Amino acid sequence: MISVVLGIVFLSALIAIGFAFTLIRWLFRQSEGTDSMKKISSYIQEGALSYLKQQYKVVGIFFIIVFLILLFMAYKKLLTIFVPFAFFTGGFWSALCGFIGMYVSTRSNARAAYAAKMSLNKGLKVAFGGGTVMGLMVVGLGLLDLVLWFVFLKWCFARNLFSTGLDELTTITQTMLCFGMGASSYALFARVGGGIYTKAADVGADLVGKVEAGIPEDDPRNPAVIADQVGDNVGDVAGMGADLYESYVGSIVATMALAATAGLGFGGVSLPMIIAASGVIASIIGFFLVKTKKEKQRDLINALRRGVFSSAALIIIGSALVVFFIGQNQYWGVWGAIVTGLVAGVLLGVSTEYFTSASFAPTKTLSRSSLTGPATTIISGISLGMRSTVIPVLLICAAVFFSFYFSGGFSDYGKGLYGIGIAAVGLLSTLGITLASDAYGPIADNAGGVAEMSDLEKEVRKRTDQLDALGNTTAATGKGFAIGSAALTALALIVAYKERVNIFGKSLELSLLDTKLLIGLFIGGVMPFIFCSLTLRAVGKAAEFIVEEVRRQFREIKGLLDGKATADYSTCVRITTQAAQKKMILPALLAIIAPILLGIILGPEAVAGLLVGSLVCGFILAVMMANSGGAWDNAKKYIEEGNLGGKGSDAHRAAVVGDTVGDPFKDTAGPSLNILLKLMAMVSIVFSQFILTYTIVK
Amino acid sequence: MISVVLGIVFLSALIAIGFAFTLIRWLFRQSEGTDSMKKISSYIQEGALSYLKQQYKVVGIFFIIVFLILLFMAYKKLLTIFVPFAFFTGGFWSALCGFIGMYVSTRSNARAAYAAKMSLNKGLKVAFGGGTVMGLMVVGLGLLDLVLWFVFLKWCFARNLFSTGLDELTTITQTMLCFGMGASSYALFARVGGGIYTKAADVGADLVGKVEAGIPEDDPRNPAVIADQVGDNVGDVAGMGADLYESYVGSIVATMALAATAGLGFGGVSLPMIIAASGVIASIIGFFLVKTKKEKQRDLINALRRGVFSSAALIIIGSALVVFFIGQNQYWGVWGAIVTGLVAGVLLGVSTEYFTSASFAPTKTLSRSSLTGPATTIISGISLGMRSTVIPVLLICAAVFFSFYFSGGFSDYGKGLYGIGIAAVGLLSTLGITLASDAYGPIADNAGGVAEMSDLEKEVRKRTDQLDALGNTTAATGKGFAIGSAALTALALIVAYKERVNIFGKSLELSLLDTKLLIGLFIGGVMPFIFCSLTLRAVGKAAEFIVEEVRRQFREIKGLLDGKATADYSTCVRITTQAAQKKMILPALLAIIAPILLGIILGPEAVAGLLVGSLVCGFILAVMMANSGGAWDNAKKYIEEGNLGGKGSDAHRAAVVGDTVGDPFKDTAGPSLNILLKLMAMVSIVFSQFILTYTIVK
Repeated sequence: MISVVLGIVFLSALIAIGFAFTLIRWLFRQSEGTDSMKKISSYIQEGALSYLKQQYKVVGIFFIIVFLILLFMAYKKLLTIFVPFAFFTGGFWSALCGFIGMYVSTRSNARAAYAAKMSLNKGLKVAFGGGTVMGLMVVGLGLLDLVLWFVFLKWCFARNLFSTGLDELTTITQTMLCFGMGASSYALFARVGGGIYTKAADVGADLVGKVEAGIPEDDPRNPAVIADQVGDNVGDVAGMGADLYESYVGSIVATMALAATAGLGFGGVSLPMIIAASGVIASIIGFFLVKTKKEKQRDLINALRRGVFSSAALIIIGSALVVFFIGQNQYWGVWGAIVTGLVAGVLLGVSTEYFTSASFAPTKTLSRSSLTGPATTIISGISLGMRSTVIPVLLICAAVFFSFYFSGGFSDYGKGLYGIGIAAVGLLSTLGITLASDAYGPIADNAGGVAEMSDLEKEVRKRTDQLDALGNTTAATGKGFAIGSAALTALALIVAYKERVNIFGKSLELSLLDTKLLIGLFIGGVMPFIFCSLTLRAVGKAAEFIVEEVRRQFREIKGLLDGKATADYSTCVRITTQAAQKKMILPALLAIIAPILLGIILGPEAVAGLLVGSLVCGFILAVMMANSGGAWDNAKKYIEEGNLGGKGSDAHRAAVVGDTVGDPFKDTAGPSLNILLKLMAMVSIVFSQFILTYTIVK
Repeated sequence: MISVVLGIVFLSALIAIGFAFTLIRWLFRQSEGTDSMKKISSYIQEGALSYLKQQYKVVGIFFIIVFLILLFMAYKKLLTIFVPFAFFTGGFWSALCGFIGMYVSTRSNARAAYAAKMSLNKGLKVAFGGGTVMGLMVVGLGLLDLVLWFVFLKWCFARNLFSTGLDELTTITQTMLCFGMGASSYALFARVGGGIYTKAADVGADLVGKVEAGIPEDDPRNPAVIADQVGDNVGDVAGMGADLYESYVGSIVATMALAATAGLGFGGVSLPMIIAASGVIASIIGFFLVKTKKEKQRDLINALRRGVFSSAALIIIGSALVVFFIGQNQYWGVWGAIVTGLVAGVLLGVSTEYFTSASFAPTKTLSRSSLTGPATTIISGISLGMRSTVIPVLLICAAVFFSFYFSGGFSDYGKGLYGIGIAAVGLLSTLGITLASDAYGPIADNAGGVAEMSDLEKEVRKRTDQLDALGNTTAATGKGFAIGSAALTALALIVAYKERVNIFGKSLELSLLDTKLLIGLFIGGVMPFIFCSLTLRAVGKAAEFIVEEVRRQFREIKGLLDGKATADYSTCVRITTQAAQKKMILPALLAIIAPILLGIILGPEAVAGLLVGSLVCGFILAVMMANSGGAWDNAKKYIEEGNLGGKGSDAHRAAVVGDTVGDPFKDTAGPSLNILLKLMAMVSIVFSQFILTYTIVK
């Protein structure tokens, strides 16, 4: 039984990775188009690679230091010896996912542009194919990693290499739980660094290009234009991939650990992996359903939706079968939790779309407020973002309540908690395809940039614009999905933290009005705010450097603005890279140090408060920032389509201010919060024994 | 002993009220200046009165409905019969405080302007005198009310008019606890309605006057100028008064109730009232120390600071004596809690000043970001606001920890909670003078408006500008103080809520990871965001009405822009009043209905989660909005002083956008949050038995 289950999971991981490689081969057979397209694409590839190289250096140093610390802690018996290595491999695989995604996406942009020359459907297929590589790599590598560790740790346990005194499943799952910290740490660097990079380049390029020099977006005369394109890849692709890899793995290991402590046996422990495995197959089937014959925006959206929704339906059916075979009646409640998670994920996407798409009232009203100037645009956008948090909060509450209820939490608390974890796994089970439709966005965006810069026919640019507009919608729903999954995963991790502290012999009461816990809640609540403040500032500062550099080039490179000389793209890329790398360190360290420091001062109750406080505030703030930003972006696009005065009107200028404010909201600060929540929980889990041992105020 | 203590409290209440009336008589003896000044002042008085009249109508209906509901609940034995009446009187006294404050402030503006004609010190004295009336009325009426109810309830208890089966002190304090709901309800209407009014008028007047017509601020040709002046009085004076009355009374009754449940006897129960009483005397002494002979900004600030700090020092000494006489050794820990609260309050003010005054780095940096346009101004301002929340959060955490620790919470939990309440009372004990220096602001602001509109000499306007600039600083520190006191008061109320549910026979465990409590935390966390969204939108909508009306007058009243015809001020006042009244209802109802509804669905644990969640998120958000807004305001002023290009430069235009966004942040949404927190706690307290009886998901 056990080897059959693990074999199935292993097999689906291999299928995902194998299919991803088939797709890569297919993609690389497509033409990259004209020489000029190839050249531009190669600039982007070089820029992205040089960014990642720099990032690996910085993060590498960090990983080595933390690895040594963990090794020392293992030596002091505060951890098992596997944890430092699990930390390292978690980081490595997360980085690998980001790298492959970025590698493929930077090689898909020109190909997507060239394919769009032929037909919209061809363009869609290439861009979506590039995105799918990313999606399948994340789920494939995630599952592979999990199953290998599981087998290895089981082997070690059988040979008595552990001395925890706990049963087999608890020992294995508790060790695997620590595995996530490496993935989370890398993901945070990738998200924050990439997020700063992409928006600093974007804002900087716009400020000095569009506003000062009056040249259009994506114009090759703008020295920051390549940095801007690179940003889409390192922020939205590599960062997003690492982020969701981490949610995916984190939700699975947390749920496995909860199953072990709730005494649900191998059936309960393996179920999260099996749900994930069935999600892999469903995603691949869904991939083949994404195609369109028509040329309308609606048809494009429907094509993508068909893929995602079919996958979800397949998982619902598939997991019902799994549940039936594994545990008959006992697991039907768990199936309810899976469905709860899936439904919550879909509805989160719908809610995000409602609040950020110009097809609906909120964004339309927002664009009208541009008529009275930038100040009212900002006030309305912030008000919109704040309002838009209500439905996601209610959805998460409903998901928590129903997954707890279905899995029998009101009679058996442990099973209920396990149900919440299962809901997170259910939500993330469609990741293969949802991430594909998300990573598709930046590829389509880049394809447009390449088309613009290499002077392709108007028709092509129009098609890539259609693909790009769709990408904005998928990016928005993808954000809703990422935030929702982060919230549920973080919650599962927090519960796992509490159980882990329990295992170490301290039963946490976690009374809400305990002074230390209350202090933890406050400090946890303020963490997302500090974090956003730091990342917003970083974008502003980095953008300033770019503005100065672009101004310098306009001044010093003769004939640049007349199109007679080429801009020095690589200096802009280098400056942005350095600024982003420098500015990502403080926020990342903060996330790691805060729970440990608070734990040492006030103990594990305060840490629990910190985690819950940051979860609540962080989730709400992340939704707000993502939706404000998305709505400003689309309100601007709505005006640019010719409404309310169109391009060049006062309303347009006001809307551009909103969009510029929204850029770091939605692409830097907001998404980074997801990982903050999970990383802090992971750090607390790994350091729980350390905190218990060295608490000052007992 | 008991009658001596109550006598002292009663006496100090009378002293405060008596001194306030002496001040009023002195104020009314000052000249109102020229006929033109009198006329303008009378416009403002009429406008403010017509606003309040309309508000009383709306709120009156609300109070009658709630009164009947409470009466019905008392009939159903879900409340004691005193609660409906306590609710009514609480609202009445709160409204009375606002009315007197507004009455005096609208009559002080012309007098302050005229006094400034003679000397800066005279101007300061009149404006500060007007503010002091407000401060002393709030504390005097608050104490009077408390002591009368205490005596009355004691009398009733002695005659067996209660059938609660509880001991005397618990019965009395639990009944008094419900008293706060009336005050909170009225305060919320006053703050939200006034806040919408003041900023809608301000933003509307600026948008169409300064930006479109190009006429200066406070220009009599602008039809919205009187509404703008009225707004300062109904929002910043009447709203602020009702708000702090409510904090003051709420913190005292909550602490009294905690003393009773912790079994601290009459000594512990009466201590909050005695601290407050000694604060009254200290405030009056402090009042006499506020004067200046010199004409510099620094001297003005020092004059006000001397008053506030001396009062704080006097309270520290006075409460040490009180503690010594009441309970010797036993109470020294409590004295530590008082000092903790006071110190936290002072430091909160300092932190606010650091982040919002142009004398320090944050606001200077913010003003430099205006050089790159409105978008970077907004991003930097939001980043600044977010960053500025860290110190206040740490201060509140420190206040909670040390007041709990000093009062012996680690060995006796109940005493520790009482200590937290005492810290809130300590923080608020200087209210007499801190509120005076806060209410001083709008009077000085109005004085400047009157001087401008009645064409007084340049010298006078310069002096009133100095007074006004100081008012901005005191308003900022006052906001920090109001938010801090709200946080500690809300916390004391939440603790009191838990104890009250205990009294009704249900011991709340309040485990952080209880599903219902967790859902409550999320919903509580989102409440401040909905609330801010609603109030921000309300300002935007109401401002639009004003813009339209002003445009209409400019179009239809011939010669208005040339100064040959008078504007129709009263229509603008009426439109703003109606809009504010209409828009204040939904947020207020939300605050009242949310805890009851959630309680009925998920029970008292969820309500506790709701309260704590909204406290954490609300506190942080309130600080952020107040500080972002304050910093934008002062960054604009800094540029207007001639820095970075001065008035009319691109940087100035960008800074104006920041200031306009900041206006509803700092004067509508932010301050309203304070009351939201307290009101929700009050509602939960009053309805706790009802919730316990009718919970659906047990």
